[in-house]
Parts: sequence; structure tokens; C-alpha cells
Amino acid sequence: MSRGVFITLEGGDGTGKTTQAELLESWLAEQGRAVVRTREPGGTEVGVEVREIVLHHRGDIAPRAEALLYAADRAHHVATLVRPALDRGDVVIQDRYIDSSVAYQGAGRVLDPDAIRSLSEWATDGLKPDLTVLLDLDAASARARLDGARTRFDRLEAEASEFHDRVRGAFLALAEAEPERFLVIYAAEPVDVIAETIRARVVALL
Amino acid sequence: MSRGVFITLEGGDGTGKTTQAELLESWLAEQGRAVVRTREPGGTEVGVEVREIVLHHRGDIAPRAEALLYAADRAHHVATLVRPALDRGDVVIQDRYIDSSVAYQGAGRVLDPDAIRSLSEWATDGLKPDLTVLLDLDAASARARLDGARTRFDRLEAEASEFHDRVRGAFLALAEAEPERFLVIYAAEPVDVIAETIRARVVALL
Repeated sequence: MSRGVFITLEGGDGTGKTTQAELLESWLAEQGRAVVRTREPGGTEVGVEVREIVLHHRGDIAPRAEALLYAADRAHHVATLVRPALDRGDVVIQDRYIDSSVAYQGAGRVLDPDAIRSLSEWATDGLKPDLTVLLDLDAASARARLDGARTRFDRLEAEASEFHDRVRGAFLALAEAEPERFLVIYAAEPVDVIAETIRARVVALL
Repeated sequence: MSRGVFITLEGGDGTGKTTQAELLESWLAEQGRAVVRTREPGGTEVGVEVREIVLHHRGDIAPRAEALLYAADRAHHVATLVRPALDRGDVVIQDRYIDSSVAYQGAGRVLDPDAIRSLSEWATDGLKPDLTVLLDLDAASARARLDGARTRFDRLEAEASEFHDRVRGAFLALAEAEPERFLVIYAAEPVDVIAETIRARVVALL
């Protein structure tokens, strides 16, 4: 059975994940690879409904409920979209995965990061990325980029920059713990320099 | 801190849980007790949205995603409604709780019952009922009751009676494992006989 390559992009909002995912997708398509570009939360129809609850519900959602909703989205997304693509031999480029849950829910909120990780590992039946690109940026620069883009702020984006600092620290700790899976890139570098760094690493996986 | 009493009703569809919950609620109110009657899934606003996804989504939901959605509903419900009521000293009467998840998702579907239980225990931060009333009925009688009531069948209710038999067996096994928590009642008994049996047990908890 042919098996594809599973690449995830991680990092705070405003670090350029979407731009890099698009550039990588185009480049892989030029190489003749079948590519599936997707994201969590919200990569499936069920996920869109879950995302709607998590991000736009009026009033607070209990922290454990929020973590479980993200895990549900992930379970459905992996089972119905990511695994079938990998089984076909495609390259899957995914915006956010388990590391985001651990960093945001674990370090950022009040829940135990190990419990959050276990939840996601159960949800995905243990599916790990072959490569995780962490786009790292200090909170002030990330906020400036988001302000510049004038995007609508959702619940998570509206949290304070102190929260972003904790998330950033959590991402960097995850990368340090698994240096073989992670590629950490300083996100203030020029877009094409970052894209080239990512491609150099992806080539080795194809 | 005063603490209330947490009573759950379990059993397949068509076993009379709603009727008995109503009778118990009325009787407790007559005794001057503050009562909260609720249900899972769907006991909160977030839960209604989750229930909508689980029961009426077009197309299949991955089994792990479904289990996680039920757990999310439960986490929010317990944190925002059940625990606050118990902290006030109220009696909470709840239609379905962790035992339903273990019986339906564990025994009825393909997932590991221990994993399902762990999920719910994490979701609820370990909240256990003081009493669980199991209304037990063979699948044929339960189906006849539902047909008689001409209710709209949802996804779960439309499953075959062989599925109901497995769920029933799972409920009975749960009751056998925790005889002190469970009160098992044969649901074909007259409604008022069942109500009296439940009241006799509840009196001891007040």
C-alpha cells in the first residue's frame, strides 16, 4: 500500500501559515504530486459545524467541552479526509493539528497538556505528521500583522498578548522535544526564503 | 457547602425514562425539594447544537468523532448546569449519562468501552451519580412502544433490534458491576409501581 506524506503547519495567528501552505501546495503540484490542503478546525462539513459552535457561540463554553469539540472535529477530519488521502499516496498539507491543541488548550488555558494530547491521540488513532513546520513569531509582531490585515477577530484572537506568549513558548517546547519531526522557522523572514527552507526539508520526504 | 443529589435514568428508547423522570420530579417538588430535570445529549444551548450535529447530520460521522461530540456535550452540561445545581443542594434528575455512552458507543458500536468511559470521566472531572435507575426492557417490547407512540425515528432509533439487545446486555452488565449505585427495574411493570419503587430508593438519599 502506497503511503503519502503528512505535513502540518503550526504557530500563532498572523505567522503566515496560510501563505506558506499555498506556496508549498503550488510547488508540489508543479512536481506532479497529488496534494490535499486542509485545516483544523473546520476541514470537513462536520468540522464546519463544530467550528461554528466553538468560535461563535454566545456565552462561555466549558474548557473541557471546548477541548472535546476540537478533538471531535479532528477525529472526523482524520478518519474521513486525511487518512484516505495518505492511503492514496497524496501529500496532505494541514493548517494546525495536535500541537495546536496542546499549545492553545494546554499551555494557554487551564487544562493539563498531557490530557489534551491523549485526547487527540485517541481521536486520531495515533496519526502523527511526518513533518511539522513551526512558524515562530513574537506576539507583538504577530499582532501587528493581524491588525494590518484588518481581519475580524474571533474569540481566540481577541485574547491578550500574554496568552500568545504562553502559546508561543508551548510551541517551542514541543519542537524542542521532537526535533526530528519539527522544522522551526522564524516567521519574520521574507516569504520566499521561508518557502525555500520548507521545500528543502519536504524534498527529503518525497 | 451543601450538596445535592444526582440521580440518572438509563435504559433503551421506549422504556419510560421521561415518564418516570416527570413523576419523580413532581413528587420531589411536593416534598419541597428544589429539582433540576435535564437530559443528555442536549441539556444546554451548546448541547442542542451538538445534538443537532450528531443526530441529524447528513452522511456518516466517524465513530470517534461521535463519541467525542457526546463527551463535549456532557462536559459543558456538567460544568454549567449539573455541578452548580448540586452545589446549591438541588436534586438533579438526568435522562442519560455516562452509562448510556458506555452501553451505546462501547457495546453497540465498535469502540473500546474503557476508552469511552475514560473520555466521559475526563469530560465530567469524575462526577458520579448518587443513584442510577436502569429501566430494563427487551428489545421487542421497547420497539412496540415506540411504534405505538408514532414518534419520529432518529438515527439511533432506526438501528436494528439486534443492536438494542447488545445495548441492553451492556446496561445490565454495568448494573451488575455497581449494584450499590444502580436500581434495576423491569420497565413492563405498571407506571405507578415503578414510580413507587424509585421513590422508596430516593427517600434514603434525601
